[in-house]
Amino acid sequence: MTKVTIRHVAEEAGVAVKTVSRVVNGEPNVTRDLRDRVERAVEKLGYVPSMAARRMGGSRSYMLVALNDRRNTINNWQSGRGNDWIDQMLHGAMLMCESHGYRMLFELVDAASQDLDRRVVAILSALQPDGLILTPPHSQNEALVQMLLRRNVPVVRMGVPGHGLGVGVHMDDRAAAFEATCHLIDLGHRRIGFIAGSERFAASEARRRGYLDALAQGGLARDESLEAPGDFTFESGLEAASTLLSRDTPPTAILASNDEMALAVLHAAPRFGKTVPGDLSVISFDDTPGIRLSVPALTSIRQPISEMASRAAELLIAASRDGPVEAKDHILPFGLIVRGSTAPPAA
Amino acid sequence: MTKVTIRHVAEEAGVAVKTVSRVVNGEPNVTRDLRDRVERAVEKLGYVPSMAARRMGGSRSYMLVALNDRRNTINNWQSGRGNDWIDQMLHGAMLMCESHGYRMLFELVDAASQDLDRRVVAILSALQPDGLILTPPHSQNEALVQMLLRRNVPVVRMGVPGHGLGVGVHMDDRAAAFEATCHLIDLGHRRIGFIAGSERFAASEARRRGYLDALAQGGLARDESLEAPGDFTFESGLEAASTLLSRDTPPTAILASNDEMALAVLHAAPRFGKTVPGDLSVISFDDTPGIRLSVPALTSIRQPISEMASRAAELLIAASRDGPVEAKDHILPFGLIVRGSTAPPAA
Repeated sequence: MTKVTIRHVAEEAGVAVKTVSRVVNGEPNVTRDLRDRVERAVEKLGYVPSMAARRMGGSRSYMLVALNDRRNTINNWQSGRGNDWIDQMLHGAMLMCESHGYRMLFELVDAASQDLDRRVVAILSALQPDGLILTPPHSQNEALVQMLLRRNVPVVRMGVPGHGLGVGVHMDDRAAAFEATCHLIDLGHRRIGFIAGSERFAASEARRRGYLDALAQGGLARDESLEAPGDFTFESGLEAASTLLSRDTPPTAILASNDEMALAVLHAAPRFGKTVPGDLSVISFDDTPGIRLSVPALTSIRQPISEMASRAAELLIAASRDGPVEAKDHILPFGLIVRGSTAPPAA
Repeated sequence: MTKVTIRHVAEEAGVAVKTVSRVVNGEPNVTRDLRDRVERAVEKLGYVPSMAARRMGGSRSYMLVALNDRRNTINNWQSGRGNDWIDQMLHGAMLMCESHGYRMLFELVDAASQDLDRRVVAILSALQPDGLILTPPHSQNEALVQMLLRRNVPVVRMGVPGHGLGVGVHMDDRAAAFEATCHLIDLGHRRIGFIAGSERFAASEARRRGYLDALAQGGLARDESLEAPGDFTFESGLEAASTLLSRDTPPTAILASNDEMALAVLHAAPRFGKTVPGDLSVISFDDTPGIRLSVPALTSIRQPISEMASRAAELLIAASRDGPVEAKDHILPFGLIVRGSTAPPAA
């Protein structure tokens, strides 16, 4: 490909290379006249700045990188249960990047890797992004966040509160679990089961606390036999549902900490002679497409993934222009979407 | 971040910069001894080659770019009906790239854009990828492919036959529609409806031909009143289903050219007093997660998206090392997954 370089543009416009760079990169403090001349030359020559050339013009790379857990992502792709976390992340972040002339990459790194820090540093060295979006469980890895902040890497932590360590963009998981549990209590349920998420994710503990908050406010005693562990997989949901539904006095409603485990409850219920929602109400977390198409469609907490990713990208792009991201949290609203899986308990 | 450069490594190892570059980029013709010295120096200094440094060492960028249609991709993300095309593409291509030390990006470009060529050239100029994966409908745009081949851009056309113009990695859509239609004929159906896909996609015409092939082989006369147009959207599927089910003698089975339109048939059927599969059999194309969770789960042609993307990436990576991609087609097997939406017609 014949390459039109920044030098050709500068020559055509009769300005310095540095001026072309400033115009192309949208930097301030270029006169209207110079800007016009450069833009005409760019147009005439069909000049497109390469990533390398844009970087030459300043310290920016015009690229953001999101770090996702390798195992979870591949599991989701392989299981084909409609988990669209990556899609919603891309939807939010890519379109925000696009609107600012940025590019968005995402990298899969195993959160349980022994040499996680080295891998992340390798990614930063190779790509030199203007900012890094950490997604769960990376976003809650405080050692990782501290390492990045020490290296002055602009970071946004998605899906978890920052707690003063960097910037968090998240929803209030505790409040969401509280609201979901209150919905069940309002329907008349008194024995409400809970399937916990993986301990690898901070949201799991927040959701458990919200569940307990609601029981306490509703005057219901905590019964630990109604709580079962899970790890966000369908299989763990099946096992947890079987444990809970085998109790002498089983729950009349179950709050599952994510969609796959809630779908598993739908599958397990008939084995215990239970229909949903007639004998058993089910609420899930995340609102992925799979549960909108299940039978019955599941009542669910909607996690604003696309909005969180969009905000994270916006903050990092602003920071690359205007200086460090302010270390404060951004809490985005969740939704409780009531569908066909919740009803009053059988009389 | 303090930066260890390729020069530090060369100095530490007592070799030329060019030698470090060859080792780091996995080029052949480096003696075992030199390779060991370089690798020890890399390890000791914690050197990570930047994309820019790797490129300096040769003409490769170690990056592939997939080009996707902007409108379709965003529609899929927004509709939340579980279309996981992007996921499966990433699953196949990212993991293949990863295993070869490559990075994978994808870009959204509106296939209907007036200045499509210019946009694509801009992406190539900015990213300078080692190869480009074209996905439908870009992959069937012959003018675009020709422009890329003229510029010596290594290209793989995904989801369509190459027909001698570049390399195609695809499944046999015509044979797949033939097999799906034969499945319905074997069940005893004689009035088989067909909902076509968008004319923007070459696969749509191939699927229609396969449907007609099967009718001819089954000795069934073509009845154009059993064919309805669609554009792959849920809404177009609803309209097509309504058209077909309003006929005086409606079909007892419908082959829809993708999953969203087949889901729409499930939604439309009850409005015409029809149950699936009792009164109406339905087969769809693509096998996205949504249709595995629908009621009933849909019999479907599985499109090997992940495998196609993986093969496309593999071909481009090999070409970046060994020279041009051989201009031949790679046809990957489809599957007919029989689920609960097909049955013999009511007596």
